[in-house]
Amino acid sequence: MITIAVDAMGGDHAPRPEVEGSVLAAREFGVRVLLVGQPAALRPELAKHADPNAHIEIIPANEVITMEDHPAQAFRRKKDSSVHVAARLVRDGKADGMVSAGNTGAVMTVARFTLGTLPSVDRMALAAPFPNAKGGVSVLLDVGANVDSKPEHLEQFAVMGEIYYRVTFGSRRPRVGLLSVGEEEIKGNELTREVYNRLKESPIHFVGNVEGGDLFSGDVDVIVCDGFVGNIALKICEGLAVQIFGLLKKSLKSSLASQFGSWFSRDAFRGVRKRIDYTEYGGAPLLGVRGVCVIGHGRSNANAVKNAIRVAAGLARARLNEKIKSELSAVVARA
Amino acid sequence: MITIAVDAMGGDHAPRPEVEGSVLAAREFGVRVLLVGQPAALRPELAKHADPNAHIEIIPANEVITMEDHPAQAFRRKKDSSVHVAARLVRDGKADGMVSAGNTGAVMTVARFTLGTLPSVDRMALAAPFPNAKGGVSVLLDVGANVDSKPEHLEQFAVMGEIYYRVTFGSRRPRVGLLSVGEEEIKGNELTREVYNRLKESPIHFVGNVEGGDLFSGDVDVIVCDGFVGNIALKICEGLAVQIFGLLKKSLKSSLASQFGSWFSRDAFRGVRKRIDYTEYGGAPLLGVRGVCVIGHGRSNANAVKNAIRVAAGLARARLNEKIKSELSAVVARA
Repeated sequence: MITIAVDAMGGDHAPRPEVEGSVLAAREFGVRVLLVGQPAALRPELAKHADPNAHIEIIPANEVITMEDHPAQAFRRKKDSSVHVAARLVRDGKADGMVSAGNTGAVMTVARFTLGTLPSVDRMALAAPFPNAKGGVSVLLDVGANVDSKPEHLEQFAVMGEIYYRVTFGSRRPRVGLLSVGEEEIKGNELTREVYNRLKESPIHFVGNVEGGDLFSGDVDVIVCDGFVGNIALKICEGLAVQIFGLLKKSLKSSLASQFGSWFSRDAFRGVRKRIDYTEYGGAPLLGVRGVCVIGHGRSNANAVKNAIRVAAGLARARLNEKIKSELSAVVARA
Repeated sequence: MITIAVDAMGGDHAPRPEVEGSVLAAREFGVRVLLVGQPAALRPELAKHADPNAHIEIIPANEVITMEDHPAQAFRRKKDSSVHVAARLVRDGKADGMVSAGNTGAVMTVARFTLGTLPSVDRMALAAPFPNAKGGVSVLLDVGANVDSKPEHLEQFAVMGEIYYRVTFGSRRPRVGLLSVGEEEIKGNELTREVYNRLKESPIHFVGNVEGGDLFSGDVDVIVCDGFVGNIALKICEGLAVQIFGLLKKSLKSSLASQFGSWFSRDAFRGVRKRIDYTEYGGAPLLGVRGVCVIGHGRSNANAVKNAIRVAAGLARARLNEKIKSELSAVVARA
């Protein structure tokens, strides 16, 4: 049975959604969950669930890393945090993967130094799934594990992202694109032009440069970029979605007719919100670390936590890291 | 009277919106418009308007640059294009500015080589206005005139963007932010960390690093970035807005109740679409060239063309370029 360690203290509303999501995941996916955090906070939450699955266990961790903590300081000073304990469970083979909806920077730092990176991996990458216009999911990476990436790093991100996509979204031969400012080979900056040349020669299904709009077009499955660009892209998407829905809400309240109309349209709105809701897609895996680590949004609800556990269990079951090791070593040998 | 040369052949639906927008602008803003393009195409469009303002004149240009043309090739091979003729009218002092909704790359190339850059300007920058959550406008630059910008280029973009914002949106002391991956000074990549240090010392009102979501927050007026990042940001915004409205439309048609509801809500939807509609904000000025050049979206309708003419006339009237020259030379002297 696959075992996932869940940082139960990390999210904005912790530990409630973490506990509920874990109960749901244990029930639906047949995984064992180690709920890591302060027992006094976790026990009453767990007791709320009529059938606290036998496959859930509380693992004590006394400290809590907050969203305000500085990642490097939190890593050094809060060694007994739920993030540290979850990472050590993975490192020591007591869990097959970890899930956290906590401070992304801190989780990345703890994972990096506690678990280390895989052989042939120079830098880890955070991969974010996006719903696309064709009803599928496209994945953007790196969305913030690195800045100032070198061409070889982006090549590694492409290989890792392709494997994650294959394993998680059931595509045999995902289309991999390079985020740039035009489709032609010569378009882009110094970095992307060199990455283009590398990917052209690689065994993955490289479809060339793609543009910002292709995050949603559904014409490409995996989109590779430096973490500086990817992080800005991710935050633009969040900001714009909030902005559009905020304007719609305000506008729909502005007249009696539209208020009346919106009452009838509410299911349609909910449907769209659900479609673009990151929580459905199971969080962002941190690729390249020794062990499985999936990071959820701080606002994660129980459904988001449940789906993140599903994704982490799937990556562990599919032996993601063994695939990364063997396929990356082939790329390195070719270089 | 301010005179604006309008490339009447450039947009996706040219020349109709170009001609209609020009007629509206001449009537509403008291500007003179030189409609540049193929007379045989322009005359019948102009004749449709009951009161073709006396302040509109057709200037013949026989060639047309299409959206498919390669910018550098179009520049070299189509010297009698409407873009070239409009740029020469500006260069020769026969127009105070130009407006085009044509092939952005070609317009930038023609403007750059026909008009040249201002003293103290190393690189020109394209500035895109965005509606923000506070009901105002925020401007992002550069959105695609450059890749691989150096710190001194971004510093110049900040100064030019600040002046454009002051002149166009009536703010006395616009807040200028640097697009990065976190608010703290140390966050960012090599480029932005050096730009941060420069802007900190500059006379503009620098508010520090801002993140992707701040394009819409209304907490900052001018956001500076390299053109590679800015172009991707712009295209993500367009792509995501299309995606969300597409999903809403589909979802609203999915049941009788929501169809019924959407009929009553339609004004609210239109209101939001209008709020996030780039056409209201008058196109993107190309800053740093000798002369005023405003580039509209290829999909520009008459309203977009009208507003672009308004912005171009405003920049000419406010003597944007004299301000850029004097304020940039102060920055260069300080360096």
